[in-house]
Amino acid sequence: MNTNHAERCPNPLDELRDKLRQFAADRDWDQFHSPKNLAMALSVEAAELLEHFQWMSEAESASLTPENRGKVREELADVFLYLIRIADKLGIDLPSAAADKIAVNAAKYPVGKSRGSSKKYNDI
Amino acid sequence: MNTNHAERCPNPLDELRDKLRQFAADRDWDQFHSPKNLAMALSVEAAELLEHFQWMSEAESASLTPENRGKVREELADVFLYLIRIADKLGIDLPSAAADKIAVNAAKYPVGKSRGSSKKYNDI
Amino acid sequence: MNTNHAERCPNPLDELRDKLRQFAADRDWDQFHSPKNLAMALSVEAAELLEHFQWMSEAESASLTPENRGKVREELADVFLYLIRIADKLGIDLPSAAADKIAVNAAKYPVGKSRGSSKKYNDI
Amino acid sequence: MNTNHAERCPNPLDELRDKLRQFAADRDWDQFHSPKNLAMALSVEAAELLEHFQWMSEAESASLTPENRGKVREELADVFLYLIRIADKLGIDLPSAAADKIAVNAAKYPVGKSRGSSKKYNDI
Repeated sequence: MNTNHAERCPNPLDELRDKLRQFAADRDWDQFHSPKNLAMALSVEAAELLEHFQWMSEAESASLTPENRGKVREELADVFLYLIRIADKLGIDLPSAAADKIAVNAAKYPVGKSRGSSKKYNDI
Repeated sequence: MNTNHAERCPNPLDELRDKLRQFAADRDWDQFHSPKNLAMALSVEAAELLEHFQWMSEAESASLTPENRGKVREELADVFLYLIRIADKLGIDLPSAAADKIAVNAAKYPVGKSRGSSKKYNDI
Repeated sequence: MNTNHAERCPNPLDELRDKLRQFAADRDWDQFHSPKNLAMALSVEAAELLEHFQWMSEAESASLTPENRGKVREELADVFLYLIRIADKLGIDLPSAAADKIAVNAAKYPVGKSRGSSKKYNDI
Repeated sequence: MNTNHAERCPNPLDELRDKLRQFAADRDWDQFHSPKNLAMALSVEAAELLEHFQWMSEAESASLTPENRGKVREELADVFLYLIRIADKLGIDLPSAAADKIAVNAAKYPVGKSRGSSKKYNDI
């Protein structure tokens, strides 16, 4: 009997990954889901998110109307779903990739040099 | 004493969110992290992912070299981190937004009508 | 003898199109230049432009340093070149397509209803 | 009296630039047209172009149906219009920027080394 803590815990990413697998299988969509095409779809969804903010001031973007917030929530979901799907197709674990990248970024942007600055790492 | 199952489970999204909050606080970067700017950064990272695939065939994109796979893993991580960050700034829960969107998509793309077709929902 | 005015005039778009054809032919790159791939490359270049502005305020974006302006000029050029290239591959004349689109936009956004408003046409 | 050849020639880019200036002035839209916002809009339009191709094979993208070709033509026009608009706001001449970039690319991608290869310049 498995009493491992992590394995007993539901992982929202794994659940969504499995739902997306089923969704594609039910519709015979795996034929379209090459990483190349999924990367395109992810970029398209990221731009749909961007569209909501393009004529807003930064301050307006931080206090959305309920209607806009609902639309933005849907776009975030779309980006998330394609991200999970492409990671699945490539066999990449998102949380560990993200944790590794935070460590890389911490080295690129040492607190002392980057505090209060938006400069890119190769310019600091 | 709280014995609720879900609350005892470590949630990778919450952990990453907290790390990103700390990362920004340490560097005084919240001043740059308006949802508008974060949506731009997310789009830029999605395009960096896209760049890896732009001249590949679909088949090539599905069998990356270890070197390319490592680079793609980093880009997926960047997209994921900005996605978590913007969702945090807007107070949006990604897993529930994603689950809701899967339900919306299931209604938009009924199995019978969309099987084997890549048409957009308003064309089926 | 051809005395037609427009035909005697050098057209910068035609000249760039011809240079890009030669550039691709010299390198045997037409095999990579499907409209699908060129649209990806165009999107990637648009995001590289976006990257320059992501942490700037709107006011800062309107008064670039000479160094930033030089980099932005290169990104605009990249977008322009891929735009000319994809239009060439699809046999689309950019100036006439653009003139037609301005007319469409004028109908979508009548002066009276859209004055001073950034709302999308289906919301006005 | 000015008899300079180039100055007598109608330049399609200048004509479109002037139409866009008038379009924005009529609607009091210059307040929204910071380079930052225009770069966002350009990226969004580039992604709308991308969307048309995301599930197509490369071969399909090269032989569009008349309906799809018409839609793609509109997206190319949108990208072109925002490109002209941002270049105008930044005082950048697109044809000369593009000619300069072709020269840069020719140096980055010497024919001998890049023939038949889609590798990036820093990998050849």
